Amino acid sequence: MAREIGQIPDAVERLVRDGLGPVRAAAAELRRADPAWVRFVARGTSDHAAIYGRYLVETRLGIPAGLAAASVTTVYGSRLRWSGGAVIAISQSGRSPDLRAVVEAARTGGAATIAITNDPSSPLADAAATCIPVLAGPEHAVAATKTYVACLVAVAALVALTADDRATLAALPTLPDALATALRLAGPWVSGSGIVESFAASDRALVTSRGYDLATALEIAIKLQETAGLFADGHSTADLEHGPVALAAPSVPVLAVRPDGAMGASIDGALERVRATGARPWIVGGQEAPASPDAAEAATHSLRLPLPVPDVLSPAVLVLPGQVLAEAVSRARGRDPDMPDGLTKVTLTR
Amino acid sequence: MAREIGQIPDAVERLVRDGLGPVRAAAAELRRADPAWVRFVARGTSDHAAIYGRYLVETRLGIPAGLAAASVTTVYGSRLRWSGGAVIAISQSGRSPDLRAVVEAARTGGAATIAITNDPSSPLADAAATCIPVLAGPEHAVAATKTYVACLVAVAALVALTADDRATLAALPTLPDALATALRLAGPWVSGSGIVESFAASDRALVTSRGYDLATALEIAIKLQETAGLFADGHSTADLEHGPVALAAPSVPVLAVRPDGAMGASIDGALERVRATGARPWIVGGQEAPASPDAAEAATHSLRLPLPVPDVLSPAVLVLPGQVLAEAVSRARGRDPDMPDGLTKVTLTR
Repeated sequence: MAREIGQIPDAVERLVRDGLGPVRAAAAELRRADPAWVRFVARGTSDHAAIYGRYLVETRLGIPAGLAAASVTTVYGSRLRWSGGAVIAISQSGRSPDLRAVVEAARTGGAATIAITNDPSSPLADAAATCIPVLAGPEHAVAATKTYVACLVAVAALVALTADDRATLAALPTLPDALATALRLAGPWVSGSGIVESFAASDRALVTSRGYDLATALEIAIKLQETAGLFADGHSTADLEHGPVALAAPSVPVLAVRPDGAMGASIDGALERVRATGARPWIVGGQEAPASPDAAEAATHSLRLPLPVPDVLSPAVLVLPGQVLAEAVSRARGRDPDMPDGLTKVTLTR
Repeated sequence: MAREIGQIPDAVERLVRDGLGPVRAAAAELRRADPAWVRFVARGTSDHAAIYGRYLVETRLGIPAGLAAASVTTVYGSRLRWSGGAVIAISQSGRSPDLRAVVEAARTGGAATIAITNDPSSPLADAAATCIPVLAGPEHAVAATKTYVACLVAVAALVALTADDRATLAALPTLPDALATALRLAGPWVSGSGIVESFAASDRALVTSRGYDLATALEIAIKLQETAGLFADGHSTADLEHGPVALAAPSVPVLAVRPDGAMGASIDGALERVRATGARPWIVGGQEAPASPDAAEAATHSLRLPLPVPDVLSPAVLVLPGQVLAEAVSRARGRDPDMPDGLTKVTLTR
């Protein structure tokens, strides 16, 4: 897992340098289809890339987007009005039968279909009209890291090319450097700030963010679940306030992912409610100082990374410290992060 | 909370006997709009009623449905192509500004808009073109119980009237009896099976189901979070297999919500993976016997309730034992279920 996290900058460089041809083709297909709606379908870690994608499609293309529930097709056997829409499947392995079934139903029903996968020879790639290989290279650790970031970048590139979003397209080649810088800064912070000890000592944790980086919070939470066995609950800060904030306590570590700008300010508000319980959140964010932490918290509890501009690309960077953290917490708890109990690399759900 | 759970059969009887007029009007509006897509918008407990609704809209109306992310409108300020779609907001209080903002944007943008709320004089009701009051009566406990079930029934009635689904419409009047029976059976099982002791002794729990009852699992999980302070993670059984099953262990209580039929069989498969960790899941389900539990598990670990026919109505019934459980676990842990720490009845997010 640690080795594959280290390969992320190279993987993303490969994708943005050599891999944009199929992304362009998929974007052309999406523009031609001019869909009334877009739905992503994915599972596990890829589901978080899908959540990122649904925000991007809405904010950059203005098209209502969401996530498909596979069981509507595979268990209830319902036929949807697919025509006029687009379905984007994301899967590292491309092998889960339920995702393939949704893509097949959508394609037969007249939707545009795109598969984003690390395996262009997979059944999922085969089922979709268009395939975007993310070129992450072989991933051996059960916990996906580099394929996750590569899928995020593929989704961002797809939406940017569809929207002709020049600012994002211009920023893509700068991403590998931003990722390398983030890894360089994350390592010492994770090992020297006390965050590993804090998470390793607890069976439970909260991870929170909102907007594009809701995906980041959910992904860091699932990494802590899979590799370290923590009950790490990921929530949007807004949803956190509608109930789960009841779980905050000084003994429960909280990690907030705080992008710069208006979303960061929105997240600050929710963190005030978390601090009111006596918890002292850890913050992984951009260059802005989070609102009103006390001095000690500001000194040790936050990692401030240079983020790519525009903000749509921040999730690819902000997830890295969380991946490094999960790997370290796993080892601190005496586990093998590369081989979590009870999990396999490819999961087949129907 | 206990008193309000006891009022659920009466609340639902009021809705199905006296409250269907506005539901009929909203259904007529939905049929007239003939939307290409439907999106629900909600927070917290109401979000789970929304998740139920999205499955119903897809399986009964064949219309792609999903959940809106409020921050796209309220924080990113994006303008979506709302025209041609329908937005259904669900909120017990009708007072969260973000939900109102989404409904206003959708209505201005040309979408059909429906509010489902317990307060027809709320800002949310005002913002939507059509309002369905759920007639649950005053709810004082912070943890919503009767308003949740009333919202489920309102959504089910809305979809059934829109689809002219005679079987579901014919079953609605039988619901109050089914709910009363479920409460009568749930009480002794919750207090006599050992399930309260099992959950009260743990800081953590897993709650799982799939399809319509994914909403039930998520709702029971948030009740355990809010009232008992447990890190109760709700997951679809399919998503559970893609990572969070790593959290299963003999020391972590698992509650599965198992409707009858094909979905129940699908859930049985995931429970085998849970049992492989040494965990022994508690099962709240219908009349069918779950696949291959051992004899001791079958005797004490499962509650089998008579469910309404058709299966679309099962979530209204299957959530009740979970509500009773959360209330009892809260008290067993020395908490006040009516007044959870750090929560308020109305939460205002933007």
